[in-house]
This record gives sequence, C-alpha cells and structure tokens, in this order.
Amino acid sequence: MTEKLYLYDTTLRDGQQTQGVQFSTAEKLRIAAALDGLGVDYIEGGWPGANPTDSAFFDEVGATRAVMTAFGMTKRAGRSAENDDVLAAVLNAGTQAVCLVGKTHDYHVTAALGIELPENVENIRASVAHIVAQGREALFDAEHFFDGWKANAPYALECLRAAFEAGARWIVLCDTNGGTLPHEVYGIVKQVIAGGIPGDRLGIHTHNDTENAVAATLAAVDAGVRQVQGTLNGLGERCGNANLTSLIPTLLLKEPYASAYDIGVSRAALEGLTQTSRMLDEVLNRVPMRQAPYVGSSAFAHKAGLHASAILKDPSTYEHIAPSAVGNRRVIPMSNQAGQANLRRRLAEAGLEVGKGDPALARILETIKAREAEGYTYDTAQASFELLAREELGRLPDFFEVKRYRVTIERRKNKYDRMVSLSEAVVVVRIDGDKKLSVSDSLDNEGHDRGPVNALAKALAKDLGPYQEVIDDMRLVDFKVRITQGGTEAVTRVIIDSQDGAGRRWQTVGVSANIVDASFEALLDAVRWKLIRDCGEAGKA
Amino acid sequence: MTEKLYLYDTTLRDGQQTQGVQFSTAEKLRIAAALDGLGVDYIEGGWPGANPTDSAFFDEVGATRAVMTAFGMTKRAGRSAENDDVLAAVLNAGTQAVCLVGKTHDYHVTAALGIELPENVENIRASVAHIVAQGREALFDAEHFFDGWKANAPYALECLRAAFEAGARWIVLCDTNGGTLPHEVYGIVKQVIAGGIPGDRLGIHTHNDTENAVAATLAAVDAGVRQVQGTLNGLGERCGNANLTSLIPTLLLKEPYASAYDIGVSRAALEGLTQTSRMLDEVLNRVPMRQAPYVGSSAFAHKAGLHASAILKDPSTYEHIAPSAVGNRRVIPMSNQAGQANLRRRLAEAGLEVGKGDPALARILETIKAREAEGYTYDTAQASFELLAREELGRLPDFFEVKRYRVTIERRKNKYDRMVSLSEAVVVVRIDGDKKLSVSDSLDNEGHDRGPVNALAKALAKDLGPYQEVIDDMRLVDFKVRITQGGTEAVTRVIIDSQDGAGRRWQTVGVSANIVDASFEALLDAVRWKLIRDCGEAGKA
Repeated sequence: MTEKLYLYDTTLRDGQQTQGVQFSTAEKLRIAAALDGLGVDYIEGGWPGANPTDSAFFDEVGATRAVMTAFGMTKRAGRSAENDDVLAAVLNAGTQAVCLVGKTHDYHVTAALGIELPENVENIRASVAHIVAQGREALFDAEHFFDGWKANAPYALECLRAAFEAGARWIVLCDTNGGTLPHEVYGIVKQVIAGGIPGDRLGIHTHNDTENAVAATLAAVDAGVRQVQGTLNGLGERCGNANLTSLIPTLLLKEPYASAYDIGVSRAALEGLTQTSRMLDEVLNRVPMRQAPYVGSSAFAHKAGLHASAILKDPSTYEHIAPSAVGNRRVIPMSNQAGQANLRRRLAEAGLEVGKGDPALARILETIKAREAEGYTYDTAQASFELLAREELGRLPDFFEVKRYRVTIERRKNKYDRMVSLSEAVVVVRIDGDKKLSVSDSLDNEGHDRGPVNALAKALAKDLGPYQEVIDDMRLVDFKVRITQGGTEAVTRVIIDSQDGAGRRWQTVGVSANIVDASFEALLDAVRWKLIRDCGEAGKA
Repeated sequence: MTEKLYLYDTTLRDGQQTQGVQFSTAEKLRIAAALDGLGVDYIEGGWPGANPTDSAFFDEVGATRAVMTAFGMTKRAGRSAENDDVLAAVLNAGTQAVCLVGKTHDYHVTAALGIELPENVENIRASVAHIVAQGREALFDAEHFFDGWKANAPYALECLRAAFEAGARWIVLCDTNGGTLPHEVYGIVKQVIAGGIPGDRLGIHTHNDTENAVAATLAAVDAGVRQVQGTLNGLGERCGNANLTSLIPTLLLKEPYASAYDIGVSRAALEGLTQTSRMLDEVLNRVPMRQAPYVGSSAFAHKAGLHASAILKDPSTYEHIAPSAVGNRRVIPMSNQAGQANLRRRLAEAGLEVGKGDPALARILETIKAREAEGYTYDTAQASFELLAREELGRLPDFFEVKRYRVTIERRKNKYDRMVSLSEAVVVVRIDGDKKLSVSDSLDNEGHDRGPVNALAKALAKDLGPYQEVIDDMRLVDFKVRITQGGTEAVTRVIIDSQDGAGRRWQTVGVSANIVDASFEALLDAVRWKLIRDCGEAGKA
C-alpha cells in the first residue's frame, strides 16, 4: 500500500536566487513546461509584484497539470491582510495555491521585524486565513524553522499551529541557512509531529550548505513529512536547494521509498530526467556538471581499468542503477589509465571495429598520450578522438587540405563616429588537386559583425566543391575556451559543440597558443566528422 | 572527553579516477604537501607499480606528518602473497601503511575473480598477514561491502573477520557503486560492530552517486566507525567520493561532532580550507564550483534582497557559520533583484562610498541591467563593475583612449614546410592629447606564437607613456569564454582573471560577437582597474 508523496518545485523562485541566474519570462515558461512534463505536483512560479518577470510569467502561463503556486510573504505588521498591497499582488496572480513565507525564529521576529512575538503569530494566522477565505490552497513556509526550534521550540511550534489552525494545507519546515544536519532534521520533525501537526500536512525545504540537503530531505520523509521541496539541478541561494534531480530517481528507484510512496513522476518520465537537467543548463548557458549524480556526463563513466573491464561483462558490477533509467549513458573515457579494452569499446562506439591485439591500438594510445601532454583532451571530444583514431587506422578520408589562411580584424570608428569591428578571412584549400582561394567578411545578413572565426568558417565553406551541400546544415551550438598547460607553456583549448539538421551533436577540440588557430582546428575537425557521417569513408559526396 | 576520529585522504588515488584528471608527479607532491599542512591522518598516494606517476611520487615524497599509504590489491589466486609481483611492487614503495582492496561480495568473487568463496577469504587473510609481517600498518578496503552485505551478510562478515584476525589496523567498508543510502549505511555498520569488528577498527568509504556521500559518512560515524575516507573537492570516479572539503568543517564546527571527536585539523588550518580547495582546482585547471559547500565563491553569497539587507545588520541571520572560519568570504552580488542596499555595499567594497538615496545609484542599476541584457555579467567581474560605477559617478580617470586597432593572423607553411601562425597588431592610442601608433607581433622571447590577443596586449603596452611601468607586473592568469545571448544574438563573453606583483587578483568582462574584440575589451578594463589602484583617481603615474 503506497502513500502519496508530493513534489514541490521551486526552481523558478528559490532557484532564481542562484548567483548569476536571472530567468526571462520565456525561459520560465520553458522550464515550467518541462517540470509539468516531468510530473511534479506543485510549481512555484515566482513572487508576483516583487519582480516584473515573475508577474509576466503568471500572466502568460496557461493550464498546467501541476498546481501553479505564487510565492509571497505574510502580511506586514500594522495593517490587515486585506489591506496589504504586497499580499494583494500575490493573490492577484490568480494561482490555485499561494505559499507565504513567515518568521518562526523568535530572534528574527524581534530583531529583523522589530515586533512582539504574539503579533507575528497573529500575522501568520491572519495571512493564511485570508488566502483560505479567497478559496485558494494555502502553504506556509516556516522560515528559519530548525534554527528557531533550537532557540525556542514552543514559540516555533506556536507559529506552525497558527498556520495549521488557520487552514494551511501545508506547513513547510525550512532550513533557511542550510546548517542543520540530517539527524537533527529527523529528530525535530518527529517532535513537530508529536506536537500535533500531522506528517501529511508537513513539507521540507533544505539547503545544501553542508552538502546534506538531499539527505536531510530523505531524513524528513523518514520522520513523516509528505511534501518535498527542491529545485532542478539543485539551483538556489548560496550552495543551492535540495536537488530534485537527485531526489526524484532515489525516491522512484531506491528502497524503502520506491515501495512506500507514490510520486507523480512515472518511470517513463524519469527517462527524460537527464535531458531536462541539460535543458536547464542550456537555458542558463552553464556547462553541465559532469559529476552530477544520476544525470552528469560522468555519472556512469568508468575510468579505472579494472572497473571498465568488469562493466563490459556485467554492468551491475560497478553501476548502482541502469543509466538508461534516467536517460543517461555509460561512458568509458580515454586516459593514460585506460587499457586497450576501454579503447576498443570506445572505437566500437565510433563505429570502428578493431581486433584484439591490433598493433594500431598501442599507436592510438601513444598518440592520445602525446596529444594530452600538449593540452588536448579527449574525454568529451569524442569526434576529435574518432578522427585521431581514423588517422592511425588509415581510415581518415582525404576530403580537403587547408593550405593557408589569413584573417584581419579591424576596429575603428565608422562614419557615424561609432566604434565598429570588421574581420576578413582568406582561406586557401586544396580539393582533388585543385587549389581554391576564398574570401569572406564577418558580417551576417543584417550587417552585424560576427567576428574572425565566423569569417574563417564562411570562407572555408564558400567553395568546398562537392562537400558544400553536406555541411550546409551544420551549426555551432557551443564554444568553450580554457587556458591550459601544453608542455611548458600556457595554451588555449577550444571545445566546439556542433549540431546538424539530423539532430546529431558532436564535440571537437583544438589547441594552440593562438585562439583563432585553436578555434579553426576544432572547426575543421567538426567539418571532417560531419563529412564522414554523410559522405562515408570513401569520402564521396 | 573526545575520541580520536581519523581522516584518510584518497585524492591522489581514488580522486585520480575522476574523468579528465591525470596528475603529474609534481602535482601529486604539491597536493600531498597541502594535505599534510591541513592535518589529515593518512595520505593514500597511489598504486605503485600500476602507474609510473604513482611510483615516482612515492620515490620523491619526503617525510610527512600524515601516514603515507600505498594502495594495491590482495594477492591473486594461485600464488602466495610472497610471490605476487603486483603486491611486491606495492610493498616496495616503502610506505608506513599499505591499503589493499579485496572482494567481499560473493557474486564478484565467483563472477569477476572466478574463484571459490573460501579461496577469496584466504587471499584476504594471507595478504594482510604478509603486510603485517613486513612491519607495516595494514588496511583492508572491503570493496562492494554494502551490496555484498545485502546479498550475503555472513560471507561479507567472514571476509572482514579474515582481515581483522590477520592484523589489519583498519577494515574499511566501501560503498563502491555509491548506491547505498545513509540509513542503510547506519544499520549495516551497527550490525558489523555487533558482529565483532570494533568501531575503532572500522573506516567508511562512500561515493556520491545519490548525492549522499557526505551524509552516509556521517551516518557511519554515528554508528561507530572511527576512520573517514574522502577526497578534496569530492574528486573521484563517476560522481566522486565523499567530499572531505565538506566533511572537515562539519566535523570541526557542528555538533555533536565538534564536542565528541578530535580530528587532526586545527581551527587555524581550517582557515586555509578555501585556499586548499582552490589550489586543487588550479592544479586541475578547473573552474572552481561556485556552489560548493563552505568553500564555493557563492557559499556565502546573498542575492535575495531581504537576506542581503538582514545580513548587513547581523550576519548570523542568514549564515550557518562565519565565512572566515573556512577562509571564505561574504558576497553581495549584483543582479536585477539587488536593491540599492546591496549596491551601496558592493560599491563600498570597491572603495566607493555613495550616500543613501544618491540618484547615481538608480543610474548604475539601470546601466547594469542594460549591460546584462547585452550579455555582460557582473556577479564575478567585480573590477568591470567598479569601472562601470565609476563612469556613472564621474570618477573614472581618463588614462588613455584606444582610437582604433588592426590585427592580422596568418597561418601558412614556413621554410621547413611546417604550418606556423603569426599575428601582428597595430594599436592607435591617444594619451594626454598625443596620438601614439604602436605595432607588435605575437612572438614570445623564444620565438613562439602567442596569438592575436597577445599581440594586441603587447602593442597596447608598448607606448602607454607614463603608465608603462605601472602595468609591467600585470599577468593574465585565466581566460574564460562562453557563448551567451546578447539581445537576440549569440555573443561571446570573455572573463579575464589578472594578477599583479602585489598579489592582487581581479576579474573583468568583455562581450562581443567578435572574440578578439571581447578579449580586448576585458583586457582594457583590467589595465584601467590596475591604473586606478596604482595611480589613484587623479590618474597620474
């Protein structure tokens, strides 16, 4: 017999408190749609009135399966709930549920609000009652609850009771400063329930300041709460909120949770989790965290030689769940520690079957080692790895050769006295014995400068003869640059993510002290990889 | 009365299993020195014999306060411990302690090793006895212990007993696949102790595959283990190992641990924790994780307007510990959500006192908002933020003006038929009414090409008149590039980290569709910031 456990997502509200994060309305709508597809029970969309983007979000978001929730704070002292314009703005968003944050720590009441303790209790009661009177579902976020409990448990409980008795559907225990450890959360939740607030009316909201947000959330569930708050990818103020991207698969796949609780996320939806996590990073223009539990690109990467060879026999030997359950995949990366078994596996993934003991394997490992010493990395740049292997195997078609290039970048005032830039690139390519010289500037269709790499890419693409059409649907989707060590010198490493019309996405790497050279090298690899895919090994378009 | 709790660091061994991580011997020595300074009890240096870098490390590392430990595996079947060359190589490293990993999960014994269950027990016993007979301290890493316990508890316990009775100082319970939850760890450790292995002979080794490695480690300590294994920054295979960078401050600063246990790390050493964490990222050339508990640059960043204003009154209102305890610092970042209180605080940090209600505050916020819409970010680029604010405040000295520039990048074959690149930059600058035209190429003292940004930087620095000397000690220490959205178009955002001889380090930002332009903009900001620091607001050298 399973019991319902509710998921409450606050990516759009508390997640936006992450340093460097500021969602646009369009981005909020996109994330809300993903959350709704995933199957969370509540979506906290923001604080209407406090932030124009949040107000616009509530105006524009349509019907959702999840209960849409507006966030705000309990009414201010010295006015009625009915006459508080901040509270009115929250209600005006017209959401089915409203979550109000209020104080429960005595010190914060007297020091931050500057009011008497009973007045704060009355503010909570009146605010919740007002929400309920409007026919909305009311939630109360008990700010600093655990610290408040440690300082003055009777008062903290009195605040919860005021919200409960006024009709709040959920009383959410918040560890606002993130310093409470899981065993403390467990003990205090038990006491709250013993104090008269039933577990199926309690929620938990933790932060990751001691790296225990997920564990503290699980501890609260163990103690009896039935609503879990968190964010996708653990976004949130400081070290982030409890990470729903980790909690959801644990609750669905691990015991005792899997058998005990019913959560709204289906097994099928769980298979979209990795994609949802990456989508959020894409919206935020963040590099996805490789080591992220369940969804990181390293989460099922087996580097140790012993592990990798065992995995090939039976994945369960070194994997706690099947990567496909969360839409992730197994990776056997290259490295100095990787043995030939790993290498053959990775070559097979690239469609290159090489026999056990083939002398090319040792040569490829040597080349990788030498390139890594120069600053290259092939852990993620699988397409460049494939090209390198093909070269050693004599299976790299000779599509074209870049003989030389020149780029000029000029920045000066234009006739309107504004500083503008313009680049111009000349590329000389040899194809099938013909030498072709092409030139391009860096202006897009609207006359805006797109820089030297763009000019180079266009000049290269201008006259690739039979390959012209094949690369037409290629698009550069990401571009990352890091200074790294190449031998004794600092060099620039560029990783390019490319995508094509067929939905393929591939990574290539270039290394040089010269950023334009490094970019061009990665770009050439991207083009070659695409030509192999579409023209085949024979190299014919 | 406190009890000793031992810290065992495996950054150099299990940490090296992180995807993309491969330490050089010199890097290992540097990290070992940092660990020794921090005060861990054991340093696991690597697997001698399995990896040339690891063998070299043990040869070169001198005396340490921590017990230096070599890692290896129990003897192979079909030969004696004395005649196992793999085991001999581990002993030959001559370390005080030796840690051997062995199987305790019945399925792995029969499927992976392909031997009978009793033979594996005998391998463990004989291997540990051999280490002890050599006068070394022996540790036994019980691989897959928790999964093994769930599958066949009596057998898993029999393996531990064999190691214990053969004289192992520590039996380390490893959650190799990382899927065991904290409450399970607690329960199983309790049963192991009830089964006859004392807690002060038990260690815990967890992985972060469910984001519970830190919590599972604490649960094991609660259940009675007295050795904690982990890595700095949570490095390690897949999702990483238990993060010592989070565990150490929790054990030192949080109850019940702070009063119950004595760990080797002092309060003074703890103040070096953030620096140690950043040093490791620097060695790995990784961008430090902003949201990292305790040591991340966002760990004490207060973005929400309400939090930030309360923090100004009393830091304990929204901070679980004082940032200085771990050598970190408080940050009040800029953002659309930041109020004028935040802004004034951040201006004060830059040495700019602006009165409450000054109309410039609203103008600065407006400018930041407009710039952020173009793709700029000022969360980290504090130096560029300061310049922007100074401009609005009329306090930006007019050091020099770049009138125009031109860079040419050529790549072609040299006389030895090798492809080489060369850049040449011309910069026109106006200083005190004089127009100065300077040119530079991109070659360093050894004749190696350093690329177009280097050529530009040198041309700019060539004739800055009175400011020449001031910028002589500036050095570019990091350079990050991301594609981001500027209005409706993708643009390049460059963040430059600069450093000078006085040990100052500062960040600037540049945005453009043109990567060279964006880099040059960030570079100009870096130079201006430095000139303000050394020449003052009057702008005189």
